[in-house]
Amino acid sequence: MTAAEVDLAVSTVIFAARGTGPDGRKELWLPLVRRIRDPFRGLWALPGGPLRPDEDLEASAARSLHLTTGLQPGYLEQLYAFGGLTRSADAAERVVSIVYWASIRADQASELHADLNVSWLRAADLPPLAFDHDDIVDYALQRLRNKITYSRVAFSFLGETFTLAELREVHEAILGAPLDPANFRRQALASGAVIDTGTRLEGTRHRPPRLYRYNSTLDLADRAPAGRTPQENR
Amino acid sequence: MTAAEVDLAVSTVIFAARGTGPDGRKELWLPLVRRIRDPFRGLWALPGGPLRPDEDLEASAARSLHLTTGLQPGYLEQLYAFGGLTRSADAAERVVSIVYWASIRADQASELHADLNVSWLRAADLPPLAFDHDDIVDYALQRLRNKITYSRVAFSFLGETFTLAELREVHEAILGAPLDPANFRRQALASGAVIDTGTRLEGTRHRPPRLYRYNSTLDLADRAPAGRTPQENR
Repeated sequence: MTAAEVDLAVSTVIFAARGTGPDGRKELWLPLVRRIRDPFRGLWALPGGPLRPDEDLEASAARSLHLTTGLQPGYLEQLYAFGGLTRSADAAERVVSIVYWASIRADQASELHADLNVSWLRAADLPPLAFDHDDIVDYALQRLRNKITYSRVAFSFLGETFTLAELREVHEAILGAPLDPANFRRQALASGAVIDTGTRLEGTRHRPPRLYRYNSTLDLADRAPAGRTPQENR
Repeated sequence: MTAAEVDLAVSTVIFAARGTGPDGRKELWLPLVRRIRDPFRGLWALPGGPLRPDEDLEASAARSLHLTTGLQPGYLEQLYAFGGLTRSADAAERVVSIVYWASIRADQASELHADLNVSWLRAADLPPLAFDHDDIVDYALQRLRNKITYSRVAFSFLGETFTLAELREVHEAILGAPLDPANFRRQALASGAVIDTGTRLEGTRHRPPRLYRYNSTLDLADRAPAGRTPQENR
């Protein structure tokens, strides 16, 4: 029984909020890879792969995110290490997966061309996944919902500027429930997390909505080990 | 570059709150193992070891906790997976450590006989540790402090029954700062987390303090993946 009998993989749960719902409402989507070999051949699985000896865990997660989506994450954070004994149908194969979750910007996600093996699927509507990846996605959604009220994660789904309606729709997509627009507007403005850019969204409406940007001077960094804040590309 | 070039270890940061401070106040202690080989020979390190193929991550953590202290944890939770490239002075050695943190009961901790290689050290007073274990202990303390206000973790440091003063001392030991006794008593009683046992602590005082127990009907379980609550032995 040596350490070499247990393999180490790094996987990523990558979320984007796209306006594909009724009336253009935002919904969460995630990229998955269709497995081409057993076990679970033909089922969708989380992007990822073995950890290379020359990269740290976060770099490995960012690398598979880039390989899968062509993008850099807006938010990247370690979720959990999954190391149960019954994760694979193949008893001889023992893999511990260190899972990261990430968010990417909707304006970048909409430009994706799906690879033959990679597809974007709606988070609310997933088919059964390979291994224990259903549990992993559920846990990532739970973490995302818990973090939304006290961290900057919602902003990482949006572009540089956004309307308050767009911000509310990201919250609604994550929480899976509608929010009162007037209350949300009031809380968002009172939070100091958004700054009025002084410009409005172009369009044919009589009174186009104001555009805001994220107030990056706020300390909304998450608990992470010293020297290791969640990777953010803003 | 194969997965076998990266080794996987499971380590544990184990806390006990012992009445060793001024006036018998509680302080946090943790068991450490003195390394007998390079690198970092002679320095203290966290208990742990390689993950066995026949055990899951939590079982591995509980096993090294038991090997080191002879005890079962009152609270056991995954902390973080540390996988940076510069963790070891030996560049050929690449180890990813999945770290669990745990609490054990003071009444059990005080019965320990120190092994030649294992000693209990005061958390507030640690010497430089092997590898990046200083960072790991700091992060575990941070997590413990963050969790104390909304979870049952403080109770896992105490026996089946305790006084409110003892409970307050555990909070003070964890937070590293004194708390107003009257306010603490009021909040603890209002929280519903403690139940009066109807008995008092025996002693020669005129009016011995009441004994309480933890209200285990409360849902104070922490966020953990479905089916995997932090291991608790109550």
